[in-house]
Amino acid sequence: MGDSNFADTIIEKTRKLGHPLCVGLDPHVAYIPNAFFSKNGQKNRPIDGIAKFFHEVVERLNGKVVAVKPQSAFFEQYGADGIRLLEELIVQCKQQGIPVILDAKRGDIGSTAAAYAALIDPSKAEAANAMTLNAYMGTETIEPFLPHVIQGGAGIFVLVKTSNPGAEEFQGLQVDHDFLYCHVAKGLTRLLPHTIGASGWSSVGIVVGGTYPSDAMRIREILPTSLFLVPGYGAQGASAKDALAGFLRGPMCLEGGVVNASRSILFPVGVDATAREWEAAFDEAVLKSTRELQEAARL
Amino acid sequence: MGDSNFADTIIEKTRKLGHPLCVGLDPHVAYIPNAFFSKNGQKNRPIDGIAKFFHEVVERLNGKVVAVKPQSAFFEQYGADGIRLLEELIVQCKQQGIPVILDAKRGDIGSTAAAYAALIDPSKAEAANAMTLNAYMGTETIEPFLPHVIQGGAGIFVLVKTSNPGAEEFQGLQVDHDFLYCHVAKGLTRLLPHTIGASGWSSVGIVVGGTYPSDAMRIREILPTSLFLVPGYGAQGASAKDALAGFLRGPMCLEGGVVNASRSILFPVGVDATAREWEAAFDEAVLKSTRELQEAARL
Repeated sequence: MGDSNFADTIIEKTRKLGHPLCVGLDPHVAYIPNAFFSKNGQKNRPIDGIAKFFHEVVERLNGKVVAVKPQSAFFEQYGADGIRLLEELIVQCKQQGIPVILDAKRGDIGSTAAAYAALIDPSKAEAANAMTLNAYMGTETIEPFLPHVIQGGAGIFVLVKTSNPGAEEFQGLQVDHDFLYCHVAKGLTRLLPHTIGASGWSSVGIVVGGTYPSDAMRIREILPTSLFLVPGYGAQGASAKDALAGFLRGPMCLEGGVVNASRSILFPVGVDATAREWEAAFDEAVLKSTRELQEAARL
Repeated sequence: MGDSNFADTIIEKTRKLGHPLCVGLDPHVAYIPNAFFSKNGQKNRPIDGIAKFFHEVVERLNGKVVAVKPQSAFFEQYGADGIRLLEELIVQCKQQGIPVILDAKRGDIGSTAAAYAALIDPSKAEAANAMTLNAYMGTETIEPFLPHVIQGGAGIFVLVKTSNPGAEEFQGLQVDHDFLYCHVAKGLTRLLPHTIGASGWSSVGIVVGGTYPSDAMRIREILPTSLFLVPGYGAQGASAKDALAGFLRGPMCLEGGVVNASRSILFPVGVDATAREWEAAFDEAVLKSTRELQEAARL
């Protein structure tokens, strides 16, 4: 990480592990085992319980995943305390060598976008390595992030086709015999120069939901070098095979992005489980997803 | 504010003041007079200078504007300290009776959107009264905000047509003999029930750039009751008349939303101005915009 190319880092880890698993860090307080919210028999503040839980999650992911994806909203809802925790988790991940993709879906005009780019500023210890963006306001709103991508080794993932049931409402509209999401994908091609690393992959990535595998293949033709961030695997219903629909043959396995799972890995047991029971179930859930993805990514 | 209808609050203030001016709180640190960054001859931390400046800005806006619009990005770039300041400013504004529209342009799926809705949770002192949203992922992503709108007196403004030069790239695409932004506007109509207040206006508002007045009129036909948040007035080039293109005749003046100015009001003098010089120029800039908008809004 640091000043190397973000895509190269992701691809190197994928080749080493044989799978592209990314774990979402989504602090759904209602699903975190109660055990994390008590200390010496006293009840913790919610934010302290969440901190304890996620420091443990990140610790247990050491060497096992290509990236983690904290969901900004779940931290923002706790205000400044939540942001402080997010920053701590980012520092912890980077110290463990786990790339951090901040799922923030930001999108705004020039000077405002430049301010958002601070969230992936490589000179800041508490900044993420990559973040998600929304291009509804045009591809000019993506440009302010490119200096960090090109010179700083950061990455971006622009929303193209999302995994939610209502994604079709606008993304699936027909424009000139093609879908809106294809126009967004085509609009991004002009941003690719100087973002492609030694691996052949670009750090200007896109978000392509795992729940629409045929769309993923169509989008891959438009953007053959862009990393995919694939949500929807696990709890949202996409199989490992579906999730890898837009991946390509690499030297070791299928490669070309990260596949994210959140709830199916973080919360494999009920809230009444002991910390020990959660640990065992969590490790097993990581192993299960890892194996499924390794199997599906095998050449 | 509180449990009254957000649109009613905005319209009531518009009728009283005779204009719909909203002032953007955009902490462009490079434009804030140096005087705010020193204390007893010592140099402040940037965040302390920004805090001093904006507490002064809000104080001086007392009774003069219909709303303020802090730009989230400029606070987020300072991490947890920036969010703490944003929360302090929101509390100050609400104490002064100035509605706060957080310009955050969030957009995400169900449970994540519900977490973002905490940013306008009326039960939280540090939450804004309204926020901006991005519907690229579909109108289902707007739904989780509606409980706060319908039961809590909060407001939302969904991006329809933005004020930036590159807005046309996707928003202006032709879909079924109409523009994409019109489809987004039409998609929002199903969210309006139970959001319309005694004033006849809906708290499900939209963002419509002041730089495209003919588009504003077209969008007003699709959404006749939605408040407009109009950026682009002042520094971005829209005149007062352009900015009011989508407003309608009310009992006192043209009404139907807020017109935002940021840089032209916040930074009317160079960074070398004394605090006293900035104060005079700021008050004059508020007065100038107020008069322009009153003139343009007069029946």
